[in-house]
Amino acid sequence: MAVGERAPAELIAPTLEALTSGGKRLRPLLLVLCAEMGEPDRQDLLGAATAIEVLHTATLIHDDIVDRAESRRGAPTAVAAYGREIAAVTGDYLFAEAFSELARIGDARLIRSFAEASVGLATGELEQYRANGATVEVEAYLEHIRKKTAGLFQAACVAGGTLGGLSLLQIDALATYGQALGIAFQMSDDIMDLVGKPGLMGKGIGTDLVEGTVTLPVILAIREGDAQILRRVLADPDPSPELLEAGIEAVLATDAVARTEAWARGEIDGAIENLGLLPDSPEREFLEFVASEVVGRDA
Amino acid sequence: MAVGERAPAELIAPTLEALTSGGKRLRPLLLVLCAEMGEPDRQDLLGAATAIEVLHTATLIHDDIVDRAESRRGAPTAVAAYGREIAAVTGDYLFAEAFSELARIGDARLIRSFAEASVGLATGELEQYRANGATVEVEAYLEHIRKKTAGLFQAACVAGGTLGGLSLLQIDALATYGQALGIAFQMSDDIMDLVGKPGLMGKGIGTDLVEGTVTLPVILAIREGDAQILRRVLADPDPSPELLEAGIEAVLATDAVARTEAWARGEIDGAIENLGLLPDSPEREFLEFVASEVVGRDA
Repeated sequence: MAVGERAPAELIAPTLEALTSGGKRLRPLLLVLCAEMGEPDRQDLLGAATAIEVLHTATLIHDDIVDRAESRRGAPTAVAAYGREIAAVTGDYLFAEAFSELARIGDARLIRSFAEASVGLATGELEQYRANGATVEVEAYLEHIRKKTAGLFQAACVAGGTLGGLSLLQIDALATYGQALGIAFQMSDDIMDLVGKPGLMGKGIGTDLVEGTVTLPVILAIREGDAQILRRVLADPDPSPELLEAGIEAVLATDAVARTEAWARGEIDGAIENLGLLPDSPEREFLEFVASEVVGRDA
Repeated sequence: MAVGERAPAELIAPTLEALTSGGKRLRPLLLVLCAEMGEPDRQDLLGAATAIEVLHTATLIHDDIVDRAESRRGAPTAVAAYGREIAAVTGDYLFAEAFSELARIGDARLIRSFAEASVGLATGELEQYRANGATVEVEAYLEHIRKKTAGLFQAACVAGGTLGGLSLLQIDALATYGQALGIAFQMSDDIMDLVGKPGLMGKGIGTDLVEGTVTLPVILAIREGDAQILRRVLADPDPSPELLEAGIEAVLATDAVARTEAWARGEIDGAIENLGLLPDSPEREFLEFVASEVVGRDA
C-alpha cells in the first residue's frame, strides 16, 4: 500500500507527518511476529502490517480533534497544524485506505477483526470524552481500555495468526495474549504519566490529570488517599502547576502506582502463559520479550 | 445489523436521528434491485443494504462537521445538535459498523467496492472544501462528483450484482450504470438548488451558492454570463438575499441550466444502455425507471 500516493495534495503533508512521527510500531510488530510463527504470504503480511498502523494513526488524528490536543509525540497534532477540517478528512482518508488494503488481501476474518476493533475504538473514545472530570469505577476503566487500547493489540495478533495460517486454538491464544498485553500497556502508560520518562514518551508529566482523564492509579488513589485534591485537579480544565503537582503527590502518597504495576504484571503473566500454545520459536520468544518490556518500561 | 444496539448511550440519539431523518434510501434500493436480478442470500442482502445506508450516513455526518452545516433534510445536523465531538465519534462509529457488517458477510469484492468508494468520499470532501469560493473547471467538477456522489452509487450496484451472483460482465455494466446515474443525480441536484423544489428537498434555493460550492450550471454560467456577480456571491461567506437573488438570476439568464440538464440526460441514456446486458426482468425495468426519474426530478 502506498498511502498518500493517491491522496489529494493537501492530505500528503498531514498524512506523512502523522505516519512518520515516530510511533513505536508496536501493532505492526505484533502482527508480523504472530504471522511468522506460521507461513504468511509476504505481500499480504506487509499490507496488513501497514493497514493496522494506518488505522491506528487515523484513530489518533480523530482522537486529537475530539480532545483538542495540541501535540503528540512531541510534534503538533494534525488538528493543531492544519485545522479540524483537514484533520477530519485525513483521518477518514486513512481509515478508508486501511480497509481498502485489507479488502485487497481479501481475508474476511482479517477484516472482521479490524472492523470490530474499530467499533470499539469509536465507542471507547466517546466514553473517555464522557468520563473527563468525573470519577470512574475500575470496571468502567477496564471496559474503556479494552476498547481503546487492547482491541487493536488483539486485532493485530488475530490478524497475524490468521495470515500465518495458525490453528483456531492458537489464534484464540494470541487474541488473549494481545488483549492482556494491551491492558498492561495502557496501565504502564498511566503510570508513566505520573512518574516520568517524558523524554521517551514525548509526554509531559501529569498530562492525563490535566486533561481530566481518570486512569487506574488515580482511581485507586481517590479511594485510599486525598480524594478532594484529585477531584479538584480533574475538574479543573486548566489546573495551575501547583495544583497539578499536588495531585501527582496525592497519588504517589498512596500505593496506587505499585498496585497498578502489580495488576499490569498479572496481565502480562497471563499473556505469556497463553503463548504456551504457540510453536517454540524465535518469534514466540520475542513476543514474551515484548510483554516483559511493556511492564518493564517504568522500571 | 442492529446499528445503535451496542452504541454507548450518547450515540443512540444522534445515530437514530441521522438514520431515520428521511433520506431517499436510493443507495440500498439500487443495491437490492441489482442483487435481485440474480439469487442473493436474503440475510447478506439485508446486511449489505443496511451497511451502504449507514456508510452514506456516516459520510453526511462528517461532511456536515467540515462544512459547518446547520441543517440537513429540514432537521438540525448532528454537529449542530450535539457538537462536533459527539458528531465526529458518531460518524466513526457508523463507519466502523458498516465495515463490521460487511466483514460478517465476508465477500472480499463487496468490501473492496465499499472501501474504494470510501477513499473517494474522503478525498472528494477535501476537494470540495478547497474549491469553496474559487472557480473550478468542468473536469475538476466531474472528478469531484465521481468521488463524492457517483462512487457510492457505483459501489451499491457492484455490491448488489456481486451478492446476486451475476457475471463479471454484468457487474461491470452495473458499475457503469451506477456511475452515470450518480453523475446525473448530482447534476440534477445542482439544478434543483437553483430552480426550486425546496419542499421536496428540504433545501433552500441557492444553498450551493451561499456555501460557495461551485456546481456545473454555475461553471457554465460564469463562462457565458455575468461572471462578476457570480464570483462575488461565491466569494462572499454570507451573501445578502439581494446578492444571492442576483447570482441565481445571473445563472438563469444563460442556458447553463438547460445545458446541465442535457448533460445529465446524456449520462442517463448511457446508464440505461448499459442495462441491456442484464436479464430482462422487473428489476431491470425498475432500474430504468429510477434512472429516468433522476433527470425527471426537475421537470
